[in-house]
Amino acid sequence: MKLYDYRPAPNPRRVRIFIAEKGMTIPTVQVDFPNKEQHSDAYRKLNPWCTAPVLGLDDGTCISECMAICRYLENIQPDPPLMGVDAKDKGLVSMWEHRFEFDGMTTVRDAHRNSLPELKSRALAGFAEVPKIPALAERARGQVERMFQALNTRLGETEFLAGERYTVADITAQVATDGAIALDMGIPAGADHVKRWHEAVSQRPSAKA
Amino acid sequence: MKLYDYRPAPNPRRVRIFIAEKGMTIPTVQVDFPNKEQHSDAYRKLNPWCTAPVLGLDDGTCISECMAICRYLENIQPDPPLMGVDAKDKGLVSMWEHRFEFDGMTTVRDAHRNSLPELKSRALAGFAEVPKIPALAERARGQVERMFQALNTRLGETEFLAGERYTVADITAQVATDGAIALDMGIPAGADHVKRWHEAVSQRPSAKA
Repeated sequence: MKLYDYRPAPNPRRVRIFIAEKGMTIPTVQVDFPNKEQHSDAYRKLNPWCTAPVLGLDDGTCISECMAICRYLENIQPDPPLMGVDAKDKGLVSMWEHRFEFDGMTTVRDAHRNSLPELKSRALAGFAEVPKIPALAERARGQVERMFQALNTRLGETEFLAGERYTVADITAQVATDGAIALDMGIPAGADHVKRWHEAVSQRPSAKA
Repeated sequence: MKLYDYRPAPNPRRVRIFIAEKGMTIPTVQVDFPNKEQHSDAYRKLNPWCTAPVLGLDDGTCISECMAICRYLENIQPDPPLMGVDAKDKGLVSMWEHRFEFDGMTTVRDAHRNSLPELKSRALAGFAEVPKIPALAERARGQVERMFQALNTRLGETEFLAGERYTVADITAQVATDGAIALDMGIPAGADHVKRWHEAVSQRPSAKA
C-alpha cells in the first residue's frame, strides 16, 4: 500500500492526519504537482481526476477522494474509530464532516484558486483549464466567515465536532481552518470556541503529519 | 423515524431513491420551501443549515446531508448493500459517489442557482442571502459536459459506476443527470454508455420515489 501525496496541498494532509491518528505507517510518493505530473498519462491511469491523494493498494486498485480513502482505512483498521462507533454516530460524523467539506474545504479552495496569481486557469482541480472567477473568490470570503460562525456555535456545545470524541469531521474542519488562516481569513475575534478547539487539534501529534 | 422532504428538490430525491432501493417505508413531512419554512426557527432547530432532507430519529436526533442519512440507513438495514460489501468495495463506492457529488450535483446546482431568475440571492443553500454569479453558471455548463465525458468513459468499463452492482454512486449520478436534463444540458450525442445506464436506472421502480 502506498499514498500518492503532495505535501503542500490540503487534501492529502487530511488523509495523512487520519493515518497518523490510526497509528498506521504508509509509504508516500510525492507527486510533482508544480511540473504537472498529475496530468501525465501514468498518473491519469491511477486517477483520471488528476488529484491527490490516491491510495494505491497492493493489488493495483487505486482509491482517490479523501473520504473514500479514509473509509477504506477505517474498515481495515477500525481502532481508534474516527468515523463513528454505531449507526447513529456514524451518520452524525458523516453529517459534520460533509458540512465542513462543503462549507470549509470547497470554500477555502474557491477563495484560493480564484485569487492567487500563480494559479492560472486552475480554478478547479483536474485536467481541464478553468479560468478564475474573481467574484467567486470574493463570495468565498463571506462563506468562510459563516463557516467560522457555524463552527463556533457547534463547538460551544461539544468538545469536538461530532461530540466528545475526535473524528474525521475534526480533521476536515481543522485543515479548512488552517487553509483559511493561510489566506489571511483566520479565526475571527470572539470565536473563542473555535480557538479552543483549534489549539487542541493543532497540538495533537497528527497535526504535523 | 421521519424524513423531512421537499419533493421538487434533487437532494431529497437521492435519499428517497435510497430508501426505495432498501425496500423501507419512512413517513415524509413536506417542508414548504417556496414559503421559506426551512428558515423558520422550528426548522433551524432540526437543521441549522436550512436544507432538506433531514432524517428525524425517534429519540429526537436529526441527521442531515444525504450521504450521512444514507450511511445511517445502510447501517440499520444492510440489505441490499448500496454502499459497498467489503473494505475495498466500500472505498470504491465512496470514491465514485464523491466524484459525481462534486462533478455532478454541485455543478448542476451552480448552473441552476446562478441562472434561474426566480432564485433571487439563493446562489447557495442555507440561511445567507448570496447573489448569483452569472460566470459561475456559464462555467458549470462546461463542467457538466466534462461530467458526461467522465461518466461515459467509466460506464464503458462497467455496468454500474462502482462495478457490477447498483450502488449509491449511481443514485448520485442519476439525480445529477436528471438535473442536467432539466436544465437543457442533457446527455450529449454519442455518450451511448451514459444513455444505456440512464435508461436502466430510470426504469428501476426507485426512480419514481
